[in-house]
Amino acid sequence: MITLEKLAQQFQLTLRGDPGLVITGVATLRHATNNQLSFFANPKYRGELRESRAGAVLIKAGDTPDCIGAQLITENPYADFARIAYLFERVEPMIAGIHPSAVIHPSARVDPTAQVGPFVSIGPRTVVGPSVLIGPHCVIGEDCSVEANGRLIANVNLVKRVQLGRRVIVHPGAVIGADGFGLAPNASGWIKIPQLGGVIIGDDCEIGANTTIDCGALDNTVLENDVRLDNQIQIGHNVHVGAHTAMAGQVAVAGSTRIGARCLIGGGAGIVGHIELCDGTTIGARALVTHSILQPGEYASGTPLMDNRAWRKNAVRFKQLDDLFRRLQSLENKTKP
Amino acid sequence: MITLEKLAQQFQLTLRGDPGLVITGVATLRHATNNQLSFFANPKYRGELRESRAGAVLIKAGDTPDCIGAQLITENPYADFARIAYLFERVEPMIAGIHPSAVIHPSARVDPTAQVGPFVSIGPRTVVGPSVLIGPHCVIGEDCSVEANGRLIANVNLVKRVQLGRRVIVHPGAVIGADGFGLAPNASGWIKIPQLGGVIIGDDCEIGANTTIDCGALDNTVLENDVRLDNQIQIGHNVHVGAHTAMAGQVAVAGSTRIGARCLIGGGAGIVGHIELCDGTTIGARALVTHSILQPGEYASGTPLMDNRAWRKNAVRFKQLDDLFRRLQSLENKTKP
Amino acid sequence: MITLEKLAQQFQLTLRGDPGLVITGVATLRHATNNQLSFFANPKYRGELRESRAGAVLIKAGDTPDCIGAQLITENPYADFARIAYLFERVEPMIAGIHPSAVIHPSARVDPTAQVGPFVSIGPRTVVGPSVLIGPHCVIGEDCSVEANGRLIANVNLVKRVQLGRRVIVHPGAVIGADGFGLAPNASGWIKIPQLGGVIIGDDCEIGANTTIDCGALDNTVLENDVRLDNQIQIGHNVHVGAHTAMAGQVAVAGSTRIGARCLIGGGAGIVGHIELCDGTTIGARALVTHSILQPGEYASGTPLMDNRAWRKNAVRFKQLDDLFRRLQSLENKTKP
Repeated sequence: MITLEKLAQQFQLTLRGDPGLVITGVATLRHATNNQLSFFANPKYRGELRESRAGAVLIKAGDTPDCIGAQLITENPYADFARIAYLFERVEPMIAGIHPSAVIHPSARVDPTAQVGPFVSIGPRTVVGPSVLIGPHCVIGEDCSVEANGRLIANVNLVKRVQLGRRVIVHPGAVIGADGFGLAPNASGWIKIPQLGGVIIGDDCEIGANTTIDCGALDNTVLENDVRLDNQIQIGHNVHVGAHTAMAGQVAVAGSTRIGARCLIGGGAGIVGHIELCDGTTIGARALVTHSILQPGEYASGTPLMDNRAWRKNAVRFKQLDDLFRRLQSLENKTKP
Repeated sequence: MITLEKLAQQFQLTLRGDPGLVITGVATLRHATNNQLSFFANPKYRGELRESRAGAVLIKAGDTPDCIGAQLITENPYADFARIAYLFERVEPMIAGIHPSAVIHPSARVDPTAQVGPFVSIGPRTVVGPSVLIGPHCVIGEDCSVEANGRLIANVNLVKRVQLGRRVIVHPGAVIGADGFGLAPNASGWIKIPQLGGVIIGDDCEIGANTTIDCGALDNTVLENDVRLDNQIQIGHNVHVGAHTAMAGQVAVAGSTRIGARCLIGGGAGIVGHIELCDGTTIGARALVTHSILQPGEYASGTPLMDNRAWRKNAVRFKQLDDLFRRLQSLENKTKP
Repeated sequence: MITLEKLAQQFQLTLRGDPGLVITGVATLRHATNNQLSFFANPKYRGELRESRAGAVLIKAGDTPDCIGAQLITENPYADFARIAYLFERVEPMIAGIHPSAVIHPSARVDPTAQVGPFVSIGPRTVVGPSVLIGPHCVIGEDCSVEANGRLIANVNLVKRVQLGRRVIVHPGAVIGADGFGLAPNASGWIKIPQLGGVIIGDDCEIGANTTIDCGALDNTVLENDVRLDNQIQIGHNVHVGAHTAMAGQVAVAGSTRIGARCLIGGGAGIVGHIELCDGTTIGARALVTHSILQPGEYASGTPLMDNRAWRKNAVRFKQLDDLFRRLQSLENKTKP
């Protein structure tokens, strides 16, 4: 519970409306009630803004005429909403110390301010820094480090030689540092290439549930600072991801590819191995990137959704496209004057 | 072991053949032996029906001439096969009680008829209902509930604020209630949007192995009753899935999308955020849905599989399609009378 | 640490250069220093070979003129590199015995030479063979077997009726033997088909992190010897994969499909159910295979990556392809002499 006046002070916002109004929570424009705070950032929701019963709305100066409730005026309503919403998050309090069920290798070092939950196992030579949360069921192997304020929510797997920077968040089911997929063919079948590298993850990165990031074959797999990965992403060995890049769910990046800074990779996109994407590249959902990208911009592949009957009719023609071009060429030649 | 006569009585089927024949198991038409029961539902397998050595076959009345063994006649052979097959499933017996290794928060409540396996951890204020199975290694966080007869097979993660209805089955590695992927950009990088909602899953749903269902940002993520999700599916925050909808493996649904009832989503299909699919929509394997669907029916995208040489030749022409249309238009104009 | 002379002897290679040179590790051509061994297999890296400071390079006889350091000459530099690299892998030593925290069902049998880590649970009638490593947090259900020298790294789930051959490696988060996705529709919704089969995995297979392999419905799901699966792959019930086949990350194979021997399936490819791929089939990344393949060779689907503006312009034309063919046909008819 906080008054609008205090919110405006704490977050340096301009207030229009009753400074004494008590805000008890945050909600969408559609569902907010008269003691809740909402935000208006996407013009698509202007109708909902006009009808919202929110007690107050975070909003840009130019949009205030459409808002009937109190307003907290800001240049970036969504970012300020993010900051304010934390006031209303119910978080279990940190309790420093190691749960009695945890199994810690004698050569591992756990900072006394860290919290280590039930059924955690920590391997040889691993270091857990100050104020780190290692949630229940995390499995940390040998030679890993988790720096200050890292949060491994639960059931996170750091397999071996994984370094997490400060404030990194890892969600359940993520597997970081498993062997990369390296095989050499020989006469009798496959020989597994030993994977001798590690994984280095910078400060403020977030790794989604069931995402996998393989250790490098010889060098390391690297995520620079503030990389954000959604769920079920696959990062192959020796991939390098630049700072502030974000990837939506189910993206896959094959081995040794280098992705620049501030890239946005759409859900389910695939990026083949041994290529480079320059800084500021945006890739559409489910696109397949088969060659390096040297110019920042948006890229896509695939075909539009159609009803099945239309799709079948057109898709079969795709097989004849080259033939079609030849026939057109031939017609053009015929009709030349 | 059960006689055909008893099977016919118990499942209200018409029997043609020896009522005293003892059935000891179920099998496919191809592999069934003369004390096993099989079924015939897919006309594609008529050849195998004719040659089957099955002791008895579940079959529609119209198909009996092709069947040499005993017959159990029904309108829906596949559904009745499903029901009968349970007689032959070897299931470990439920043993009510909490394994001594489990760690249960003092504020959690576990029904005395529930079974809680080894290395389970259950967090604050979580409620486990009657006859629920919480298999080994499940990690349940705060404020969750699992209603009567739910079955979390093993290593299931309910992160926080997850409600499972009655008879819900969750397979290993599934992560339900992890933070949704919410980021606000600001000058220095990304700000994480706190994810304050939960996940509500209706009765009779089934959630596949390594599937992830994120908690809502402000409101909840919702699956209505009898939703069936295969393995490795990703459901983003605030998605709503209607009753009886089924999704095959590796489907991804982005945030705030609303999927109707009785939809069938093919394997690996992707559905972008903030759209609606009406009741009765069918989406083909690996299709990408980029806009709302208002008419029930079948939808698809993509191109047909080709041998690589033909594919390269035709795919390159896709880049020239618009140009091609212009050239055709120009030819058409020329040849107008 | 090993001299070049000893390396040449042990791996039967021809040495050109100082036999007394001590090799302390392995590295890429770019990063190797003068006591490290590298390899040259991909002609793309010839520039790096010429500039490499590697103490020695594994190389084919024909490529030696481009190499300034010592050379270990071989027909298959990559395969020999794989073998030699194991000398430099730091592996935690096996320690036979069962960690006191592990929970083993009284009817399970664990070979005394096996290592069973912390928080492992092993179910009824399961058998663990000699020199097997069951890493921390593995959950093994009923009626499974792990043959000699198998390695379950950590947090591996063998749900039920799973047989692993000799030297099988399974990475964290993999789920093998969960129920296949079998549903029969009836008037009131879905009926779950009980999944009564198991999973049989041959010798020398490797299963990637967070990969899922479902148990069969009636018969078994089968991987023959030396099948190699990368991360996040989904193998449906009753799939059969031939020997030496390798699949890259995020491949999905739907139920009852039969894949031949020595196939290569590119990352993210999808293969529908109830079809066959012959031996020696290669499938491109993200291709969708919708019908059986009878001829070995390379297959692909999809469209090339384009910048977004060009893509939109061309993709919309895909919807008019069939119409285009008709218009072309009509023009051709008109211009016939």
